[in-house]
Amino acid sequence: MQNRVHIGNLKDHIGSDVVVAGWVHVRRDHGKLIFIDLRDETGKIQIVFNPKVSEGAHTTAESLRSEWVVSVTGIVKERPDNLINKEEPNGALELAANGIEIVNEAKTPPFDVTEDTSGVGEEARLKYRYIDLRSERMQRNMRKRSEVVMYIRNFLVAKSFTEIETPILTKSTPEGARDFLVPSRLQQGKFYALPQSPQQYKQLLIASGFEKYFQIPRCFRDEDPRADRAYGEFTQLDIEMAFVEQEDILKLTEELFTTMVESVFPEKRITKKPWPRLTHKEAIAQHQTDKPDLRANTSDPNELAFAWTLDFPLFAEQTKEDFFHGSGKATFAPSHHMFTAPHPDDIPLLDTDPMNVRGLQHDMVLNGYEVGGGSIRIHDPNIQTKIFELIGFTEEQKKEFRHMLEAFTYGVPPHGGIAPGIDRLLMVILGEPNLREVIAFPATSGGQAAVMDAPSEVAKEQLTELGIEIKEKKE
Amino acid sequence: MQNRVHIGNLKDHIGSDVVVAGWVHVRRDHGKLIFIDLRDETGKIQIVFNPKVSEGAHTTAESLRSEWVVSVTGIVKERPDNLINKEEPNGALELAANGIEIVNEAKTPPFDVTEDTSGVGEEARLKYRYIDLRSERMQRNMRKRSEVVMYIRNFLVAKSFTEIETPILTKSTPEGARDFLVPSRLQQGKFYALPQSPQQYKQLLIASGFEKYFQIPRCFRDEDPRADRAYGEFTQLDIEMAFVEQEDILKLTEELFTTMVESVFPEKRITKKPWPRLTHKEAIAQHQTDKPDLRANTSDPNELAFAWTLDFPLFAEQTKEDFFHGSGKATFAPSHHMFTAPHPDDIPLLDTDPMNVRGLQHDMVLNGYEVGGGSIRIHDPNIQTKIFELIGFTEEQKKEFRHMLEAFTYGVPPHGGIAPGIDRLLMVILGEPNLREVIAFPATSGGQAAVMDAPSEVAKEQLTELGIEIKEKKE
Repeated sequence: MQNRVHIGNLKDHIGSDVVVAGWVHVRRDHGKLIFIDLRDETGKIQIVFNPKVSEGAHTTAESLRSEWVVSVTGIVKERPDNLINKEEPNGALELAANGIEIVNEAKTPPFDVTEDTSGVGEEARLKYRYIDLRSERMQRNMRKRSEVVMYIRNFLVAKSFTEIETPILTKSTPEGARDFLVPSRLQQGKFYALPQSPQQYKQLLIASGFEKYFQIPRCFRDEDPRADRAYGEFTQLDIEMAFVEQEDILKLTEELFTTMVESVFPEKRITKKPWPRLTHKEAIAQHQTDKPDLRANTSDPNELAFAWTLDFPLFAEQTKEDFFHGSGKATFAPSHHMFTAPHPDDIPLLDTDPMNVRGLQHDMVLNGYEVGGGSIRIHDPNIQTKIFELIGFTEEQKKEFRHMLEAFTYGVPPHGGIAPGIDRLLMVILGEPNLREVIAFPATSGGQAAVMDAPSEVAKEQLTELGIEIKEKKE
Repeated sequence: MQNRVHIGNLKDHIGSDVVVAGWVHVRRDHGKLIFIDLRDETGKIQIVFNPKVSEGAHTTAESLRSEWVVSVTGIVKERPDNLINKEEPNGALELAANGIEIVNEAKTPPFDVTEDTSGVGEEARLKYRYIDLRSERMQRNMRKRSEVVMYIRNFLVAKSFTEIETPILTKSTPEGARDFLVPSRLQQGKFYALPQSPQQYKQLLIASGFEKYFQIPRCFRDEDPRADRAYGEFTQLDIEMAFVEQEDILKLTEELFTTMVESVFPEKRITKKPWPRLTHKEAIAQHQTDKPDLRANTSDPNELAFAWTLDFPLFAEQTKEDFFHGSGKATFAPSHHMFTAPHPDDIPLLDTDPMNVRGLQHDMVLNGYEVGGGSIRIHDPNIQTKIFELIGFTEEQKKEFRHMLEAFTYGVPPHGGIAPGIDRLLMVILGEPNLREVIAFPATSGGQAAVMDAPSEVAKEQLTELGIEIKEKKE
């Protein structure tokens, strides 16, 4: 739009004739004068329509309703002292309209976006997500999210990390959850899996000579959702480094998130720097959980208590779920995942007392939530093979990972990493009760996509091409 | 690794004792002296093992083979003038080893990574991608890719764009290709589709009050591959802006990619600035293609000829493919996609002569490749409805998009955008013959994942959970 001035910049145009454009936030009629608050993505401005200035504009303004899109021409004026609203960034200004054009009309919105929408029913908010996202809180959440991921990327690039994308159409990685499957058309009867994480690819990138890798990938788990676990897909920061020890990973992560919070959320206070470190045993003994909430005052919304939990047992009792998702047939399963290195002091215990072997795992905890986990990985194919045997992998299961074992025989340095969850991290920092508040288009708990009619039925021809059919339901 | 010095920084340590670590690039025996070139991600250094300096290190060095991972201690020395290799960044230095530790041995690699691997068979390169990626050219391609996406993001963020992620588990968007489907477990018999692009979501984000949106998302098309089209998934830069005209999009894109090339590829020359603009008619008349190669000298690897093709016809003859992929039952289909706005001068022709209506579409062309496309979108629900009717949408097809039509009734500003393909852009700029050279883990033309055994067979229990079965093949 030619010569449009963003509302956030109006203070630089006092006394000038300008064009602004945006959404009608509210309209108020005061006798002959009509006031509207116009909203664009940079702010809000009060606009006065006075029939003595422009009768045409005043008449048009009479027809305006909430959320109509308009462009307005007018003169930027300072308000008299007694009418200054100190709560609003543009509270000392108003625009005296001399012209208006209706760009697009709007039906009455299903809920009020001038208020916080957290009290509105979830169904309406997700169906009309494009209206919900106009509210101030949701705008802030999305913009803060954008700032956070940019901060992270620039921090890592400045430290010589390379960002590398890994495939979405790939093979199951055994992270202990159910995979989403994608039927292959070119190889009928076979399936891709959407990655639960780029775990194998990031280790292969280390084998590829990329010593400092990162990515902010989408990950997929077909798990039943919880408030702190989105259905279907989530976003994580994926970091992997060669020639490192656990201490290097902890230090880098701590510096990254401490400076990120200080830069993007200056109003927040990190309780303790450096972050407290607890062994798994200490955490359980002192806090009855491996993700303790170390805030001094849990009702202070600006307090952030980061912590590390370390020295997890390498193995845990196997659950029925573990078994279903492809763990071995032993009575125990990897407590993190099967690529986590055992603590070097405990390697002899692998043969004698595996349940007491500690893993080089690290969990990043924030205000009682696990917001990231990682480990030093195994890079010795013999130890990897031993772990496969200990968890009771069948020959067939071992075959599934022979490409990893083979990669380890071609010169792989020691390596490790961490994968903080972006959605959950944002939820905790922003003090939101649910992940859906920090995701633009989240799925419902039933897996229904926001706005869209998905999942949905598909044409028979599509299934025929894929060589699959829907099983008849037994009555 | 404690006190490790990166090989690229050795010039700052002349005369000092240092630790370096990396891969054995080559080994040469010269009488009693053993030379190895050690490689890390920052460079290469010649290391001399002299039995008079350390007999133990010399003995270990005798056993070294290509691609073993080692750490070496030694003194950084300047080479005598007559032994300086001016071709290599560290060609004036060498390391006199006094100690070595073998970190990980390596089998003989299936091909030589000290040479350009483009002549190696595709199958071996993809199976052992983690070895292929160690080669200098592949390292460069991946690192340049990382630099390009960071440049793009920082450019856009500096112009107040917000990065927003959109779902991968979603509904089909009719971009003229076949969808990948994901069976839903929670709603058996229904399917998600992986997005061919975030087209609908980005328009919904404009409706959400995000006036400058971008994302570098993964997109999915189940199309048969070509050299310039990867199988399955690809990455695009997705840009959408509110309150803009086509000119704003062209200017922004031109500034973005011109400055990106100047910054990331200073050795490249952009033939013409500003980029030439051709109407579709002119392009066809003068070059017999809508993506003309405007280089003066097509054998100059450093010449980049960007151009715009504009004024495309809004509709094209419908192909069988269009029909299959959900276009309407009219004899013509959208030539870009069904959300592209008709040229305002041509709106009357929608009723009288639709095949002569121009669309507000823009294609970004580079050296004869289409590297991006976009348009001004329809924001008026009445015109959108008219387009649906013109392309012969059935009532059922219209229903599929009723959420978009509905969104347009709640106050949507004029908007438009562009979506340059990151893979193809990199391929052309780097002068590579195939997209696989700029993707870390590309699929084969048969859809086989690199390194991994995917797609693969899955357990019957998984299909049962999803309520689908594999169709018996008819003999």
